[in-house]
Formats: sequence, C-alpha cells, structure tokens
Amino acid sequence: MIHVYTGNGKGKTTAAIGLALRSLGWGSRVALLQFLKLNASGELRGLARFKNCKVQQFGTENFITEETADELDRQLAEDGCSRAEEILSDKSADLVILDEINVALHLKLIEIKRIIDMIAVCPPEIELVLTGRDCPSEIISLADYVSEIKEIKHPYRNGITAREGIEY
Amino acid sequence: MIHVYTGNGKGKTTAAIGLALRSLGWGSRVALLQFLKLNASGELRGLARFKNCKVQQFGTENFITEETADELDRQLAEDGCSRAEEILSDKSADLVILDEINVALHLKLIEIKRIIDMIAVCPPEIELVLTGRDCPSEIISLADYVSEIKEIKHPYRNGITAREGIEY
Repeated sequence: MIHVYTGNGKGKTTAAIGLALRSLGWGSRVALLQFLKLNASGELRGLARFKNCKVQQFGTENFITEETADELDRQLAEDGCSRAEEILSDKSADLVILDEINVALHLKLIEIKRIIDMIAVCPPEIELVLTGRDCPSEIISLADYVSEIKEIKHPYRNGITAREGIEY
Repeated sequence: MIHVYTGNGKGKTTAAIGLALRSLGWGSRVALLQFLKLNASGELRGLARFKNCKVQQFGTENFITEETADELDRQLAEDGCSRAEEILSDKSADLVILDEINVALHLKLIEIKRIIDMIAVCPPEIELVLTGRDCPSEIISLADYVSEIKEIKHPYRNGITAREGIEY
C-alpha cells in the first residue's frame, strides 16, 4: 500500500522512522532512502542496529531552493529514484520509505511522472511511504494512507533551533 | 520540553516511537508508557533491542468507552501516571512518552489536573511527549511542540483492518 505523510508540522519523517521500527520489530526488511539529506542523525544511528534495515542518503549538506538547486542535486535525486525503482523491482524490502521525496518534487528535482509510475508498479506486498510537505494532489489521489501533519506549535518560532535526538 | 501529537490521523504513536528511536540513537534513555494498551507490537519488539529503553503498558486487551470503563481501567491509568511522576522525579529517562494519555483523559480515567501538574514539575532537561486524539486545550496551551495529525485517507474506510508492522 502507499502511505503519505505530508503537511507543515513536525512528525513526518519521525512517523516514517517509527513505522520502520515497527516493521523491523516484526522482522520485515526496510529500505529508508532519504532525499535532500546528508547528515548524521539519531534515526541512522538507531536503525544501524537492525541488519534488515538499509539506509541511503541522496543529498548534500546544503539547504537548497528551486533557484539554487543545481545539477548535482538533480543527479542525487535521480540516483535515489533509480535505487527505489530497483528495490520495488527486486522486492528486496517490504517497507520502502522515500523520505522528503515530496520536497524533491516541489523543488522540481524529479518529475512527478517518475513517482506516479513508481506507485503504479509498486508490488501489492510492499509498503511504499512518501514523506515531505507539499505532497502533490496527483499522488494523494493514488495513496491508501494520507496523514496531514499540521503545525499547531513549534519552538523554532521562539528561536529554538533543531536539537539532537528531537529534530534529527 | 513538552510535545503533543494529537488529531484523528495515523501517525501519533508512530511519530512518538520514531522520536524514541531517534533519541536512543544518540544514547538517550527512553521511557515509553502506553495507556489503554496491552498488546504485542512491532514497536515493543523493536525497542527491546535497546537497553536504554523501558516500556510499560497500562491497559487491558479490551476496547473501552467512557461508559464501559471500570475500576480496573482507572487503576491502570492511575498506575501509569504514578510511574510517570516517579520517572520525572528521579530523572531516570531523558525522553518520557505517555502514549494515548489524551484518550485516557478523554475517557475520564485520569483527571486533567494530574497531567497539568506533571507538566509543571517536568524538569527542563526532560522531553515529555503526550499522544492521542482529543488533546484538551489546557494541555495544548502548555506544550512547546504540538502537531495535529489529520486523517486525509485511511484504508480502514475500505474495510482494511489493523495490520502487523503498520498499525501495531
């Protein structure tokens, strides 16, 4: 089935890694592909305990916008998509998380058709999870689970920056 | 800081256990107290890998409503609160998750003052996470992070029941 975690609130990647842990607990094989990220994080360190979990990051350390995105950013996003297609084809994971893929779409690093095609060929026994704000309506219409996480309060509004163990 | 995951969508407990994994990855000590639950789950099985994580369930296997809740349900919720107060007092965890506590409040198993007092005495170095739909506004006003998870789509509307590795 196809899962989407979108919206502007905290909890999208967090829920996806919670789902990873839950699936790993039952012995499933998990692939976490992180777009637009290249950083150490608690989830990477925690998931490293599970031999059934493969994590790959397809991003740089830079924060990018549609204007500043360059060829490398597009190539990395492309690599992440190719890897996802490979996993869906060889069925080497039961749960496949495309973390921040919606942002990669929003930044036009990937064409939406690529993801729509991926959803179309996703084997029914695989759970495919897409996270990130601004999920396009075409993808929402194809998904089975869609949760919109709305920010009601967040301490960054009071100048608190991202904290280890909480935001990453 | 105080975190709330509320709303009617999938992802509240899931995000809380994702936060647990993230914190455990950095070596933090986690206490997951689950109200209204007594069940095997992927999160329990997965978190069992981490010696820094303590999980306790304070519920029965029965689904309850405000009308069917009995003395045992109230006692279990009371036990969960006492355990939480103990942890906040002896600082034996860095992240304390009160899973489904909002539902226990909504079912009147616990008085809201109990939770407001707990938030008031929560040491600043401890992250206290409250999950469950119908979080009372008095608690939202005291929290630092509040995410409302809205259900846009969920397959149970099409008769799909809770699945291992996904819902538990």
